[in-house]
Amino acid sequence: MQTTIVMFKLYGDIYSGNCYKVKLLLFLLDIPHTWTHVDILNGESRIAEFLAKNPNGRVPVLGLPDGRWLFESNAILYFLARDSQFLPTEPFCQAQVLQWQFFEQYSHEPYIATSRYIVQYLNSPPDLQTDLESRRVGGYAALDVMEGHLEKHDFFVGNAYSIADISLYAYTHVAAEGGFSLKPYTHIRNWLQRISQHPQHMTMDQLAG
Amino acid sequence: MQTTIVMFKLYGDIYSGNCYKVKLLLFLLDIPHTWTHVDILNGESRIAEFLAKNPNGRVPVLGLPDGRWLFESNAILYFLARDSQFLPTEPFCQAQVLQWQFFEQYSHEPYIATSRYIVQYLNSPPDLQTDLESRRVGGYAALDVMEGHLEKHDFFVGNAYSIADISLYAYTHVAAEGGFSLKPYTHIRNWLQRISQHPQHMTMDQLAG
Repeated sequence: MQTTIVMFKLYGDIYSGNCYKVKLLLFLLDIPHTWTHVDILNGESRIAEFLAKNPNGRVPVLGLPDGRWLFESNAILYFLARDSQFLPTEPFCQAQVLQWQFFEQYSHEPYIATSRYIVQYLNSPPDLQTDLESRRVGGYAALDVMEGHLEKHDFFVGNAYSIADISLYAYTHVAAEGGFSLKPYTHIRNWLQRISQHPQHMTMDQLAG
Repeated sequence: MQTTIVMFKLYGDIYSGNCYKVKLLLFLLDIPHTWTHVDILNGESRIAEFLAKNPNGRVPVLGLPDGRWLFESNAILYFLARDSQFLPTEPFCQAQVLQWQFFEQYSHEPYIATSRYIVQYLNSPPDLQTDLESRRVGGYAALDVMEGHLEKHDFFVGNAYSIADISLYAYTHVAAEGGFSLKPYTHIRNWLQRISQHPQHMTMDQLAG
């Protein structure tokens, strides 16, 4: 007789930074989970079965052991990191974590992640060149804000590695794939290295393997 | 001799939904605060004095009585609502609040709020018509997701008025100003009415007054 172990279920595409964020945290926290690949380009996030988990049709989605579903990568990170070293306990520090996560979703992801999507997934079609150029401006503006912060701090909140760093690391470390050069951003490059040197760090390729 | 009362300081433009969210919550919670209008169109959010408060140059920004600064409207709401009836205490419910707040910033605000900005603040210039039309698609998709949820629930999380509702109310209730029709969205219209019927509710005009 087989025993069914009820555990967290993660649905996503590991090369999507939003999904990588969550899978990386699950590994850092040693949380057992199952992984289901969702083929976005083939419309798998738009079918009824998936929309029942997230009516907004986006990855990642987390299934809880009790059957409830949670979507939005940064909300999932916040939920999983609770009571761990990746979420500070002081209310103002928790708010700062959220501040940087909202910054990531509004001022960083739509420029850097979407540029990478256009370049890597859509092969930079000519009709998206103007769009791509305008996203460069917003992406570099976000990198400037990050560089300014990291000039004075080792991490984004409370001088310790938190989910604010995981959120921003996800697409910053692959910004070159969207055509961004991190060469002028010394502090960002040092911070990326700090994150990747965590003893339990896993790359996208390692998590895909 | 005058006594200086140290209190919260809010910087913003009350007709920006992101700022309205925070000022509405401050009123609902009876939190004393000062208000400083920031003239965005005249570049006041891009000057050094403002960038020292928020290096990303966006409103709103909250100044704490102890002198610290917090930016990103939804992070501010989460911080202020802690230990109040506007933020549920159960961890999964708190994560659901964040889920809807991230949905708002990523899948709603860039379409509905930005359309309203183009129409109301920029007077719909001809070169932004294509942009405006593409934002219509995203905006209606977000409204569809909301309608589906409100068909089965009175509020977004835990069947009670929370900051998830405040976040989504801010730009949904002025969606018509961006050219969106809420006529087919019965459940959204009922929910907007529920929010506006809270005994301490304040409109943008009342808060501007």
